[in-house]
Amino acid sequence: MIEWCDGFVRLIDQRRLPDELTFVHAETVDQLCDAITSLAIRGAPALGAAGAMGIALAAVTGVPLDDAATKLRATRPTAVNLGWGIRRALAAADPVSEAVAVAGEDVARNRRVGANGAPLLADGMRVLTHCNTGSLACVGYGTAVGVIRAAHEAGKDLRVWADETRPVLQGSRLTAWELRRLGIPVTVIADGLAGSLMASDEVDCVIVGADRIAANGDVANKVGTYALAVLAAHHQLPFYVAAPTSSIDQTMSSGAAIPIERRPDDEVAMVAGQRVVPRGVEVDNRAFDVTPGGLVSAIVTDAGVAWPPFSNSLSRIVVSTSDAHAH
Amino acid sequence: MIEWCDGFVRLIDQRRLPDELTFVHAETVDQLCDAITSLAIRGAPALGAAGAMGIALAAVTGVPLDDAATKLRATRPTAVNLGWGIRRALAAADPVSEAVAVAGEDVARNRRVGANGAPLLADGMRVLTHCNTGSLACVGYGTAVGVIRAAHEAGKDLRVWADETRPVLQGSRLTAWELRRLGIPVTVIADGLAGSLMASDEVDCVIVGADRIAANGDVANKVGTYALAVLAAHHQLPFYVAAPTSSIDQTMSSGAAIPIERRPDDEVAMVAGQRVVPRGVEVDNRAFDVTPGGLVSAIVTDAGVAWPPFSNSLSRIVVSTSDAHAH
Repeated sequence: MIEWCDGFVRLIDQRRLPDELTFVHAETVDQLCDAITSLAIRGAPALGAAGAMGIALAAVTGVPLDDAATKLRATRPTAVNLGWGIRRALAAADPVSEAVAVAGEDVARNRRVGANGAPLLADGMRVLTHCNTGSLACVGYGTAVGVIRAAHEAGKDLRVWADETRPVLQGSRLTAWELRRLGIPVTVIADGLAGSLMASDEVDCVIVGADRIAANGDVANKVGTYALAVLAAHHQLPFYVAAPTSSIDQTMSSGAAIPIERRPDDEVAMVAGQRVVPRGVEVDNRAFDVTPGGLVSAIVTDAGVAWPPFSNSLSRIVVSTSDAHAH
Repeated sequence: MIEWCDGFVRLIDQRRLPDELTFVHAETVDQLCDAITSLAIRGAPALGAAGAMGIALAAVTGVPLDDAATKLRATRPTAVNLGWGIRRALAAADPVSEAVAVAGEDVARNRRVGANGAPLLADGMRVLTHCNTGSLACVGYGTAVGVIRAAHEAGKDLRVWADETRPVLQGSRLTAWELRRLGIPVTVIADGLAGSLMASDEVDCVIVGADRIAANGDVANKVGTYALAVLAAHHQLPFYVAAPTSSIDQTMSSGAAIPIERRPDDEVAMVAGQRVVPRGVEVDNRAFDVTPGGLVSAIVTDAGVAWPPFSNSLSRIVVSTSDAHAH
């Protein structure tokens, strides 16, 4: 939910949802960087577009593009899409039209992710998801939520369990808001309930997004994803990852080298302006974790579904995408 | 942290921590029931004392004891200790002195839990815990936190990871507050981070409390406990449960029949008075889960440490406790 308007970037302020639907207008690179670090805009595919639009903003406001790229890259380290969007705009003759192209491609790409993943979800399934991977996390449509949405549009009757996803509550605030608007039944749970829902046979599969996928299929995603993958394996449930090919980072042979962002303590220590962790007590707020490819059943992309072993299947997908770009 | 004062029950209002240390005075059974259902007082051992004190309040205020017992039992279904405390006071000639005795025994019993469990924690260990099992959850000292505390008092250098424990945040609000006062280093984390801390070799063992332990070693405890047990098993880490013998329910052959309390949606939907789940979206707020005994490494009680197979070891412990009571 980010768009290039003539000379500025317009985005939904996700910090204010679900209470208020308001917009941020970023007219400078610094304003856009603030919107990114404060999570007014978040989600790996949306960050790809934001990166490209940041370079476009630099171009129209007369900021050196390399300086803008450095600032933008420093905002969020884990999602690979941010750097990908920045590189696309930097490499283009006209950063503005490239940013608009990146955004336009995102929606089409996510629809292909949805179409490719929808057959994995059978009629009647109870699907558990984590964080927000809907249109808010992208330019539009969504990735993991896009798969759910595509299956729903195909007439399948699905029910969704949405992990609230502490500390920032993207699940309760954003995913529940989006699914309700789409008419897809959703129930919000504390993150700690997911395991026992699996044990009591109330979950049929798990589907999540990705902030970066290594060449071997290791997946960096919102903290809590790894625990879900272990729990899904323990209960022999499919664990699916849905992401555009721009989230695949072939320069990372495994997830071990993926930088994990540590976010401000106050995301955990304060809720709605009220302190819940006593002063002087340490907080560890790593915002992402890495799920080994060995715990992933399939990776759904716009270029097809990758199955284990991922080293082979992902490299075939990346090659096919590069071929498509070359034409 | 509950005590019988002459004619009323005094307890720390745990809803106000860590911001304010305030007390509730319950002068009637109804006031005490309100304090229990609203979580001003919570924790299985504390509920045992509260049950006995509720009968004592009925006795001094002229309420029929059976009516009081019915009301008190209805407040919280999962912790077996509540009914145990009620039964002790009902069976006594003088409910008031029995309630005082139940409370006094609790501290001594928890110190024995601590002494029995402390050898399981080695110097330098990084211990992960969930919810609050400290003195606030008991009349005093604590159960799982009591084990940590006893090991700390024995001179062992421990570090604690405290799950914040959504939705009520007993970990961040209460456990962190208690451990800080005890001088034990503690770091608060979102519940979703526990799994990846295990994966990155930053946890040496897990220790939690119990609201009810079935005869086969199945453990009902705060929601999220089961996921920790699966994660601990996946990482070959010890998973310990610490509880007084009053938490063992020999009438339950397995955990399948343990009633799981569903608490109000607003515990998940509202944080600090602010709505985080959109109106009209369903919430599932089961407050407890059941961990199969097969995932538990040992159960630490005041009457000794029970090891698998628990059907044998727990029944020996219960028999030895009954013997002790008979003398």
